[in-house]
Amino acid sequence: MAKRTANTGGRSYRQGPQRRAEILTRAIEVFAARGVGASLRAIGEAIGVSHAALRYYFASRDELLVEVYREHESRAECDAEPEVSAVDLMDRSALRNRAIPGLVELYATLTTDALQAGAHPVTREFVQERFRRVRADLAERVRAGQKAGTIAADIDPDDAAALVAAASDGLQLQWLLDPDGVDVRRSLAVLARLLPPTRGG
Amino acid sequence: MAKRTANTGGRSYRQGPQRRAEILTRAIEVFAARGVGASLRAIGEAIGVSHAALRYYFASRDELLVEVYREHESRAECDAEPEVSAVDLMDRSALRNRAIPGLVELYATLTTDALQAGAHPVTREFVQERFRRVRADLAERVRAGQKAGTIAADIDPDDAAALVAAASDGLQLQWLLDPDGVDVRRSLAVLARLLPPTRGG
Repeated sequence: MAKRTANTGGRSYRQGPQRRAEILTRAIEVFAARGVGASLRAIGEAIGVSHAALRYYFASRDELLVEVYREHESRAECDAEPEVSAVDLMDRSALRNRAIPGLVELYATLTTDALQAGAHPVTREFVQERFRRVRADLAERVRAGQKAGTIAADIDPDDAAALVAAASDGLQLQWLLDPDGVDVRRSLAVLARLLPPTRGG
Repeated sequence: MAKRTANTGGRSYRQGPQRRAEILTRAIEVFAARGVGASLRAIGEAIGVSHAALRYYFASRDELLVEVYREHESRAECDAEPEVSAVDLMDRSALRNRAIPGLVELYATLTTDALQAGAHPVTREFVQERFRRVRADLAERVRAGQKAGTIAADIDPDDAAALVAAASDGLQLQWLLDPDGVDVRRSLAVLARLLPPTRGG
């Protein structure tokens, strides 16, 4: 692999991919604990990386935010066996997210940014593609429950998948705003009455 | 009522409350059709109100956004008879919102802004208070369904209320991002199997 070298403000950045990965790691840590910075400069200060270095690796705040979330998801063990029900999958995710509210905030920021008329294409494409992938995965799990006979056969798997993804997102948002007023897992358990796991547990 | 007068940039603003209401009306119209502007100045340009006038009536973009949404909700007929089920209430709201995607975007912006570490207190308080009010209303409707015998007695009304509010918010967000991929009302109808209306229809 050819080394990338750039001269930005008098410093040269060698071993680009490795340094880029280090920056993403640091950003994931800081975002998880303290939330998302308002500008690329503020993020650089928070994660202890010069603004010049950050700009070398990421063209914009939008691109950095997408890459941080993408990297976080690829590291988190988001894959689960096909036997795990749609609701249980969201429940596991909610459990993991309790420890990293700043990354839930980052996710909410990305989805809201994607809605704006002037949204960066990288944000909009990432969020749209992610929702399609999540819904397809959840719909497959609903179909598995229908095959196993635990979920009513006349529920449309795609409608149910969008519902489960929405419930999970919306509940985590309410929980962030009012941790004592909302219990994500208990509310998801209500939904599990309609879309129960295939195996007990 | 005493008239407020201010001299900003050589123009005086009389009849403050009336002019303020006109500005909110115009902002609701423009936001509904075109979404939320990125800055107070951009919003002023979009709604055809000078930046100085906007700043006279609203201390910040945050305050304007909250007031626009508050005013929109007070004008929309959001009150419904107690017989309307929790899910049907969200369904009515989703139906209304189809025509005003920019105000759904404004709502998503307010909730995401409220999460940020540096959130304006006016935004955070508005969003938190609104969620509490919406959940309390929905929980009351779930209790009514339980009294009428249509909803299982062992479902916690508060857990169900948070679930219904979350599903509604999350589905509308997915619909904005992918209008052909998500049908809010069909997904809400899946949830209505668990939390059906008291009266048929």
